[in-house]
Amino acid sequence: MSASDQSDSTIPATLPLRNDLIGEEPYGAPQLDVPVCLNVNENPYPPDPKVVAAIAERVAAIAPTLNRYPDREHIELRQAFSDYLARESGVRLKVEQLWGANGSNEIMLQLFQAFGGPGRIALGADPTYSMYPEYARDTFTTWQLVHRNEDFTLDVDATIEAIQDVKPSMVVLTSPNNPTGTSLPIDDLEQILAVCEQVPVTGANEGVHPVVVVDEAYIEFRDPDVPTALPLIDSHANLAVSRTMSKAFAFAGARVGYVAASQGIIDCLRIVRMPYHLSAITQAAALAAFDHTDEQLARVAHLRETRQQTAQWLESLQYKGESIKVAPSASNFLLFGGCFDNRQRIFDELLNRGVLIRVVGPDGWLRVCMGTDEEMARFREALAEVLPIVEQTE
Amino acid sequence: MSASDQSDSTIPATLPLRNDLIGEEPYGAPQLDVPVCLNVNENPYPPDPKVVAAIAERVAAIAPTLNRYPDREHIELRQAFSDYLARESGVRLKVEQLWGANGSNEIMLQLFQAFGGPGRIALGADPTYSMYPEYARDTFTTWQLVHRNEDFTLDVDATIEAIQDVKPSMVVLTSPNNPTGTSLPIDDLEQILAVCEQVPVTGANEGVHPVVVVDEAYIEFRDPDVPTALPLIDSHANLAVSRTMSKAFAFAGARVGYVAASQGIIDCLRIVRMPYHLSAITQAAALAAFDHTDEQLARVAHLRETRQQTAQWLESLQYKGESIKVAPSASNFLLFGGCFDNRQRIFDELLNRGVLIRVVGPDGWLRVCMGTDEEMARFREALAEVLPIVEQTE
Repeated sequence: MSASDQSDSTIPATLPLRNDLIGEEPYGAPQLDVPVCLNVNENPYPPDPKVVAAIAERVAAIAPTLNRYPDREHIELRQAFSDYLARESGVRLKVEQLWGANGSNEIMLQLFQAFGGPGRIALGADPTYSMYPEYARDTFTTWQLVHRNEDFTLDVDATIEAIQDVKPSMVVLTSPNNPTGTSLPIDDLEQILAVCEQVPVTGANEGVHPVVVVDEAYIEFRDPDVPTALPLIDSHANLAVSRTMSKAFAFAGARVGYVAASQGIIDCLRIVRMPYHLSAITQAAALAAFDHTDEQLARVAHLRETRQQTAQWLESLQYKGESIKVAPSASNFLLFGGCFDNRQRIFDELLNRGVLIRVVGPDGWLRVCMGTDEEMARFREALAEVLPIVEQTE
Repeated sequence: MSASDQSDSTIPATLPLRNDLIGEEPYGAPQLDVPVCLNVNENPYPPDPKVVAAIAERVAAIAPTLNRYPDREHIELRQAFSDYLARESGVRLKVEQLWGANGSNEIMLQLFQAFGGPGRIALGADPTYSMYPEYARDTFTTWQLVHRNEDFTLDVDATIEAIQDVKPSMVVLTSPNNPTGTSLPIDDLEQILAVCEQVPVTGANEGVHPVVVVDEAYIEFRDPDVPTALPLIDSHANLAVSRTMSKAFAFAGARVGYVAASQGIIDCLRIVRMPYHLSAITQAAALAAFDHTDEQLARVAHLRETRQQTAQWLESLQYKGESIKVAPSASNFLLFGGCFDNRQRIFDELLNRGVLIRVVGPDGWLRVCMGTDEEMARFREALAEVLPIVEQTE
């Protein structure tokens, strides 16, 4: 646990902190030292020893050049993104259509830096990823939400209506959506793209249309019938698809996110990126991981099965006479409950038993990500013990 | 050379790029494949083989955990910053007074994100580092300049007058200054701090005062009589001192910058930082480099001598009957000339001879950074050849 992560703010009133940040807390789930961590949607399986050796080797090979700045354009890594996506989704993109950054966090920030700003609006679909409002805040973009259907699917009509109404510069969709796991049908996305290609943007020049960002951080965990937005890139200059090596690729600690889009969008990001934002070591480590794509993705199928089994098991549970609901998920996590009248208490009791999940999403729900078989056994055991206790005392 | 680094912009007018970014080019010196690169103020000496081995070892040790997110608070690395500064400057700071990021670029961006914004002003002293206006632009902060004295020292009276006049939220000073190499006397800094502690900030709440940022990216190259601002941190809650491992520490490729300041300022940065902005690999590599501080800094004294000798040599040259001027430098680069009526031509002719320097700073001047002995011999030879040619044809 990082002691100073727990904010006991010492910010004196004499500092010129931006007015809208006063009283804000640093974003992030608590980093606790707990036996079973199922709270930040990591891949629980560590890299294969072969991958560890490859990373050390690649890093050692570039270390003698570390006195020099890295390749600002990270061309070799962008080629590796291209090769990976061609293999993963069957879509071949050019180097000029790809761009990397320190996690998809930084990708999203760069998108907001390029296409947001004061007087501009970014539109999301609630409930969704809790970092989006932070990117908007950090770039003075107005963040607006349209509500998802009760089953967490995108309310396409309401979304289209909102786009026509607020004329956003950015529409941020998420597939699979976090924290619900919901995927976005390709027809829905195509409808939204068609509307965006007609709608003007508040605060922009004439003839300008919204950028549609599809955040596919968890897409590798999808079932075969769930689509990726990648095939639409070549025909839609205003579409950006964000990806990350943090999740399925088991590389969260290395901070590598990337985006696939038209060359025009990538060139906009090149204007706002910090020069040399991606270190030579990060580039080397990512290349090493891509050299071992098979090993890095080895556990994805098993995690998908774990999700199916865990969903079934959760649906078999009851809380106060009601069946526990599980949102259909194309990801490595499950949003479950829907009926918890004190989810914080359930969370706390699980934590008392060494199992860390996440209080996130609409009230009444909790999110758990898929761990190893042993971790999931601990989770099931703890939850089965906790639910009757909380039920009785509430 | 990175082919796509040369902007032949393909940004269609339908994209909602921020109005103020339309027509902008990505920042950065050309990354050319040239025998002698003296253009981006790198340390020319590669890391010692012992350091290379240590980096590979540290990275291999953490690689099995890369499926997990890194320590968001990078506590161990902040302790290493503290230990290094205690040794380098004799000033012992607490972990809570230190903060790291992907290069001092990201440190500066975070400072602007926390303390800048629409309606706020950041004040710098011209000529100075050409990235500052980019941080301001990226955060919608108004960037204003006060002019330095003719010898590039800070015009303290004019700076104080400007502070009282524009009431900035940030005053950005640079010591040694880039591209002039000029250092900031501690008395001057103390005067400015005293004024800032009384001045209100445009657009901020009552009782709020400007933050003074001293960018000390090149400070390790200073002569013994040149001060660092670090000893003033404990007595000035509004002072932030930015440092980097990129320059003297010969670690530009690893992208590690850091800032020393009051805990209050650090807590402001923690609000705007991306969660997990610093990868586990970056943290491990930086720790490995700090394990070998002696080796990493081994060439600093020699580069200081190189600077002194190169300055003397440059001052012995003439251009069109005038002695070439050299700005007194506490850094690893020299701004020279003052009399070049076509500096671009001199730059081009040097490049034709395989020597890359930088066209930067006031008209009539050029900047060269200190290379190895061999590289400096090539530079002297090329310049001695080029000056008479340019002289004759202009």
